[in-house]
Amino acid sequence: MGKQKAVVLLSGGIDSATTLAIALDDGYDVYALSFDYKQKHKKELKCAEKIAGHYNLKHKIVKIDLSWAKSALTDKKTKIPEKRKKIGKDIPVTYVPARNMIMLSFALAWAETINADAVFIGANAIDYSGYPDCRPEFYKAFQKAAMLGTKKGAESKTIQIKYPLINMTKSEIIKKGMSLGVSYHLTWSCYKGRKKACGKCDSCLLRLKGFKEAGYDDPIEYEGEV
Amino acid sequence: MGKQKAVVLLSGGIDSATTLAIALDDGYDVYALSFDYKQKHKKELKCAEKIAGHYNLKHKIVKIDLSWAKSALTDKKTKIPEKRKKIGKDIPVTYVPARNMIMLSFALAWAETINADAVFIGANAIDYSGYPDCRPEFYKAFQKAAMLGTKKGAESKTIQIKYPLINMTKSEIIKKGMSLGVSYHLTWSCYKGRKKACGKCDSCLLRLKGFKEAGYDDPIEYEGEV
Repeated sequence: MGKQKAVVLLSGGIDSATTLAIALDDGYDVYALSFDYKQKHKKELKCAEKIAGHYNLKHKIVKIDLSWAKSALTDKKTKIPEKRKKIGKDIPVTYVPARNMIMLSFALAWAETINADAVFIGANAIDYSGYPDCRPEFYKAFQKAAMLGTKKGAESKTIQIKYPLINMTKSEIIKKGMSLGVSYHLTWSCYKGRKKACGKCDSCLLRLKGFKEAGYDDPIEYEGEV
Repeated sequence: MGKQKAVVLLSGGIDSATTLAIALDDGYDVYALSFDYKQKHKKELKCAEKIAGHYNLKHKIVKIDLSWAKSALTDKKTKIPEKRKKIGKDIPVTYVPARNMIMLSFALAWAETINADAVFIGANAIDYSGYPDCRPEFYKAFQKAAMLGTKKGAESKTIQIKYPLINMTKSEIIKKGMSLGVSYHLTWSCYKGRKKACGKCDSCLLRLKGFKEAGYDDPIEYEGEV
C-alpha cells in the first residue's frame, strides 16, 4: 500500500511552510495548493513555488478572482495598516471575505479528485490577525460540512481537515519548523509585495515577534531597521 | 431602511430560477451569482444571463478553473450517462467534487462585500441526482461554518444560508415557480451543451418528469421525441 495523500494549502508564509513540513513528517504524500487571488503580495506565490520545488512536490496554483471582494489585501485604494497595537483584538481590513472557506473548498475538490485522505491548513488562532476563519470552532464546523458535502467524506469519512498549528504561538511554530528543517529563508509573510519585507504590517510584526521569542534570526531581509 | 440584500446562486436551471423568484417574492434585493467552471453545458450561463436580465438584477459570473476536478460535467473524455434507471440512489459521475461548497463560499464572500443577509441556493434532495452536497444535513453544517468563518456571521449572525427547495419534488418546484411567474422557457437543464436538450441525461429526465407531474408543458425544445 502506498502512502496516504494529503492536500496542503501553501501560501508561502511561515505557517503554511511549517504545516507542509508537519504533513511530510506525518508520512503523507503531499500535494501543495496555492491561490493567485490578485493579492498585492503576489511575491508569496513565488515563495510557495520555491518551497514546493525544494521538496519536489506536486504543486497547483489555482487562479481565483476575488478582486471584487472587499479587502485591503486586494483593493489598491485601501492601505495596509501599519504598526497596529492590538493585533487579533478585532477583524482588520486585511480580512478577505470567506477566503479560507473558498481555499478549503478547492482543496477538498482536489483531495477528492486524487483520492487524498486529508487537507492541511496552517491556520493559527494565537498570534494571528483576528480573522474569524482562523478559529478552531470554524474548522470543526467546516470538517462536518466537508464530511457531509463530499462523495469521499460521505462514503468513507476519510477526508480530515487538519490544522496542526491552531493553538501554537508563532514562536512555537518557528521552533517546530526549525526542528523539521523548514527553509524559512524561502518564505514570505509581508502583506506588501515589495522587494524587502516592510516590517510594519500585522504579518511582519507577528513574524518578527515569533523569531525573536523563538531565539532565532529571521533569515529574510527587511526595509530599514526592525 | 432599504431592502435586505441576498446573493442567489443562479445556474440557469429550473431550481435556481425558482429559488431566485422565491428570494424576490420574500422581498430581497437580489444579487445573482453564476459560475463559469468550464462546464460542458455552458449554455446554462447564457440562460442565467437572460434570467438575471429579465428581472433587471445585478449579475456576476465568476470564472473558476475546475477542469482538473474529476467529473463528467467537465472532463471531455467521460461520457454523460443516459437513461439511468435509479437516479439518486448512488453518486453519479456527473458529481463535481466540492462544487456547491466552492460556489457557496464565493457567495458568502460576495454577501459580506455587499453586506447581504442571506445566500440562496436551489439545492434539492428529492428529485435529484444523488449528489452529497444537495442534502439538508450538508447545508446545516455549512450554515454553522458560515457563521463562524465570516466577519458578518461572527459579528452579527445575519448571514443565512437558505435552501427553500430542499424538500420539494420537481413538480412542486415547477408549480411554485409557475405561481411566481418564472419564465421557464429561459432556463436550461441539459448536461450536454447542444442546441436542443438531449432528453436523456439525469437532468433532462428529472426536468421532464417534473413538468409531466406538475401538469404543464415544458416550454423548451428537445432532440427527437421525449
